[in-house]
Amino acid sequence: MDLPTPIDFYFDFSSPYAYLGSHLIGPVAKKHGRDVQWHPFMLGVAMKGEKTFPLTQYPKKGEYSRIDFDRTARRHNIPFNMPTDFPKATLAASRGYLWIAQDDEAVAVAFAQKVFAAYFAENHDISDPEIVADIASDCGVDRSAFLEAIQSPAIKDAFKNSVEEIVSGKKVFGAPYFVVDGEAFWGADRVGQLDDWLAEGGW
Amino acid sequence: MDLPTPIDFYFDFSSPYAYLGSHLIGPVAKKHGRDVQWHPFMLGVAMKGEKTFPLTQYPKKGEYSRIDFDRTARRHNIPFNMPTDFPKATLAASRGYLWIAQDDEAVAVAFAQKVFAAYFAENHDISDPEIVADIASDCGVDRSAFLEAIQSPAIKDAFKNSVEEIVSGKKVFGAPYFVVDGEAFWGADRVGQLDDWLAEGGW
Repeated sequence: MDLPTPIDFYFDFSSPYAYLGSHLIGPVAKKHGRDVQWHPFMLGVAMKGEKTFPLTQYPKKGEYSRIDFDRTARRHNIPFNMPTDFPKATLAASRGYLWIAQDDEAVAVAFAQKVFAAYFAENHDISDPEIVADIASDCGVDRSAFLEAIQSPAIKDAFKNSVEEIVSGKKVFGAPYFVVDGEAFWGADRVGQLDDWLAEGGW
Repeated sequence: MDLPTPIDFYFDFSSPYAYLGSHLIGPVAKKHGRDVQWHPFMLGVAMKGEKTFPLTQYPKKGEYSRIDFDRTARRHNIPFNMPTDFPKATLAASRGYLWIAQDDEAVAVAFAQKVFAAYFAENHDISDPEIVADIASDCGVDRSAFLEAIQSPAIKDAFKNSVEEIVSGKKVFGAPYFVVDGEAFWGADRVGQLDDWLAEGGW
């Protein structure tokens, strides 16, 4: 018997809605017997092509989004504190994810969850490779091997190619962006719709 | 006893999600014993200040949104055909709404629903004052008085001031945009959240 295909979850570690979405997608995937495949990418690269900007930089939409991040987090009991410095470069964390996942995807996901929490609950600077390496170390990953790996040409290239494939190939323009059985759902607020879609087999 | 405050519904007749939202908000309002107060405005004015564009003009987000308009319509059994000419200027319809509402808000809402359907289900040109006047006439409104009114300085000014108040005063940046008891919800996909908010008295 074929296993059901996983839910692809595209995110940037610097996206508040991706953080919220990371909390919401797990239970829904589990309910439908699906795995979640995590794919960090560079939202900035996607935004460049779309001529969009980080949400908080829009005058009115930005103000609304800050209220909505909190409201969505409260709704689902997700710890959330808007980081004081936003957005952040997330190259170290993203490359780190790819490198850890080569060995053990479950560890990579645990690492990703801790990176998200460090930024969106504990206000840590996840652009700092040393802080990200501490998190990797907390997950049982060798700290110095991690720091070396995220500067290696092989991992740099692998992430660059992955971002290119996600943005140009998969046409991902925002985060969180979920794809299941070829159907795309954009936004933390669409996880409920994705849930319904799987429950009803589409409509 | 004070009556519960209405749900304010801000929309542009040219917004697909506002059309979909107009179908979704009615039953939710009714369930909670609320009226819906309709407020047409110019999304273009709001977009100018935000440096945003009509959804379909974004390369990838635009492609996704066209799929999502249809998918959302199917989900809720709302008749929907993406108009061939999009977006449209909606001054005539918006001014017409304001003028009719001065006399009878229920008739104005019936008119607004027909304008939305004319554009998003029947592919009619709602930028044409003659077509909009036909719709008003279908609602029992005097056709020539309508055509005169939407060119009158009084109605032109009233609508201009209303748009200014909505965009600058209320800080509405998109459509549909709902406000209930001071709480704002943006997007047709947030009507369910608004429903929960009213059911639970916030969170």
